Amino acid sequence: MPSAPSSRVLTVAVAQMGPIARSETRTQAVERLISLMEESHGLGAKFVVFPELALTTFFPRWVIDDEEELDSYFETSMPNNETQPLFERARELGCGFHLGYAELVRDDAGKKTYFNTAILVDDTGAITGKYRKIHLPGTAKTVAGAPHQHLEKRYFEVGDLGFPVFQSQGGVMGMCICNDRRWPETWRMLGLQGAELVALGYNTPHVNPFATAEPVFLGMFHNHLSMQAGAYQNGTWVVASAKAGVEEGVHHMGGSCIIAPTGEIVALCHTEGDEVAVAQCDLSMGDYIKQNIFNFEAHRRIEHYGLITSQTGMKRPDGV
Amino acid sequence: MPSAPSSRVLTVAVAQMGPIARSETRTQAVERLISLMEESHGLGAKFVVFPELALTTFFPRWVIDDEEELDSYFETSMPNNETQPLFERARELGCGFHLGYAELVRDDAGKKTYFNTAILVDDTGAITGKYRKIHLPGTAKTVAGAPHQHLEKRYFEVGDLGFPVFQSQGGVMGMCICNDRRWPETWRMLGLQGAELVALGYNTPHVNPFATAEPVFLGMFHNHLSMQAGAYQNGTWVVASAKAGVEEGVHHMGGSCIIAPTGEIVALCHTEGDEVAVAQCDLSMGDYIKQNIFNFEAHRRIEHYGLITSQTGMKRPDGV
Repeated sequence: MPSAPSSRVLTVAVAQMGPIARSETRTQAVERLISLMEESHGLGAKFVVFPELALTTFFPRWVIDDEEELDSYFETSMPNNETQPLFERARELGCGFHLGYAELVRDDAGKKTYFNTAILVDDTGAITGKYRKIHLPGTAKTVAGAPHQHLEKRYFEVGDLGFPVFQSQGGVMGMCICNDRRWPETWRMLGLQGAELVALGYNTPHVNPFATAEPVFLGMFHNHLSMQAGAYQNGTWVVASAKAGVEEGVHHMGGSCIIAPTGEIVALCHTEGDEVAVAQCDLSMGDYIKQNIFNFEAHRRIEHYGLITSQTGMKRPDGV
Repeated sequence: MPSAPSSRVLTVAVAQMGPIARSETRTQAVERLISLMEESHGLGAKFVVFPELALTTFFPRWVIDDEEELDSYFETSMPNNETQPLFERARELGCGFHLGYAELVRDDAGKKTYFNTAILVDDTGAITGKYRKIHLPGTAKTVAGAPHQHLEKRYFEVGDLGFPVFQSQGGVMGMCICNDRRWPETWRMLGLQGAELVALGYNTPHVNPFATAEPVFLGMFHNHLSMQAGAYQNGTWVVASAKAGVEEGVHHMGGSCIIAPTGEIVALCHTEGDEVAVAQCDLSMGDYIKQNIFNFEAHRRIEHYGLITSQTGMKRPDGV
């Protein structure tokens, strides 16, 4: 809503990536990220959002039985030798970032747990928040007849950090990852905690391998629809970065964007390659929505929402 | 998703109404409803959706202190003498309907309770479902400086029937009313029970009286955005009917529409007066969404949704 200029304007970049080949090294990927960060900084950005699993190709499209090969796609520490240059450049430029990557955790007994993870990093290069993906799409087993597989349920555990928000970049920041963005529960969990900006990355095939008869153009509509509704219904900025283009034979959609708390797309990537788009985000802009149409305290009726947390699947009532 | 023709196609009409003047009688309003039903039937419809509070002007814009005057806007039985002709015409035409009205309930002790209500009526003229509005917008007290008031919290109690679904018109039918459509909780409650079609009416001013600086065009965008997301995220048809145009000095938006389970608007009213739009709705069309991208059983993680039902208002976590 137009109002007096706020001192809470954060200039934000969404940094889309084109494909990452299977043969591409971490060092090469990080060089691309640094280049995108420098471009973003040149446009005035103090915060840049990178895609989901931004350091490697999207490996869950393959069946990988060899544990050593699988582990090669995961980071066991962050930052690490390969990503340290990105953290250093962030500090030098005073430009924070959001980064998605595959995370491998070893407990004291050596047991390994795998997550699809994202972090927030502030303008000093310090990690200020971590999120582990909760809504894992796809399947744990291969699906016969699908044009490609989507095995996130095979390779990742469901995130164990909930939907946290963080004080970072001067505002209340939330994160989610890819399929999380389709679920209104994700947005509401972040909205109930006062999120002012939600950063996310995604790797989304143009063709849904499990609903191949669906018209392909609906993919981009659904991508934006869910995020625009989440922004509006919670009065938050959304900054969403795709890994796009044809990666190892699978065509992923772009459409990386910055969405205002009104639900409007205010910046949009228009290629399927490495590309930056920027917007000046007043972190107070959602306040009038949070205080009026979506004043939760005044309007929500949790006594009538019971099934949302008591029932996982769809179930017709008796007699219906 | 294109597939073999289903035997579950229900031809549905959305019947928008132009303004109802304060001086207009129930009989006059019912004559308009019958005319819209006949037009819908002529276009092949077996089910027609009328607006919220379709029998009178939208009285919550006024402060009404006189109890007798207030009660004059409410129905104490349904059908009643004035609405009986609509039920009879429905039976004659074999055309069911959804109707919103103000409902006054008197208990045995004479205590009066007021609801913003809607019903489903089948093609025999029998009432098959009732819903009472849960998300009451606006305020209980007048707001100084607002261009007009919106006193639903003054005149209505929060609905006490939850978000029920019904077997009617050959499918699983849900309802909500006006402001309910903005809340993802409404859609999820209906989706968790397998809703295949959700009928609703609305009376929405072009200018939000409590956020007058918001660009007016956003009103229609928000109207459609919330319903399209609700349709897609639950794989359900949405049939939404406005009372539109300038009613007693307040300009209400139209935009009545039928939305497919893909989230696409497949029929749209383009005037602000009495108008019908029709679509052939395959009630099985949402199945592929319910079984894939929004397969709740496979993907929802209720253990991470706790705040949605435990916390009404927005609250920043400690330290954020």
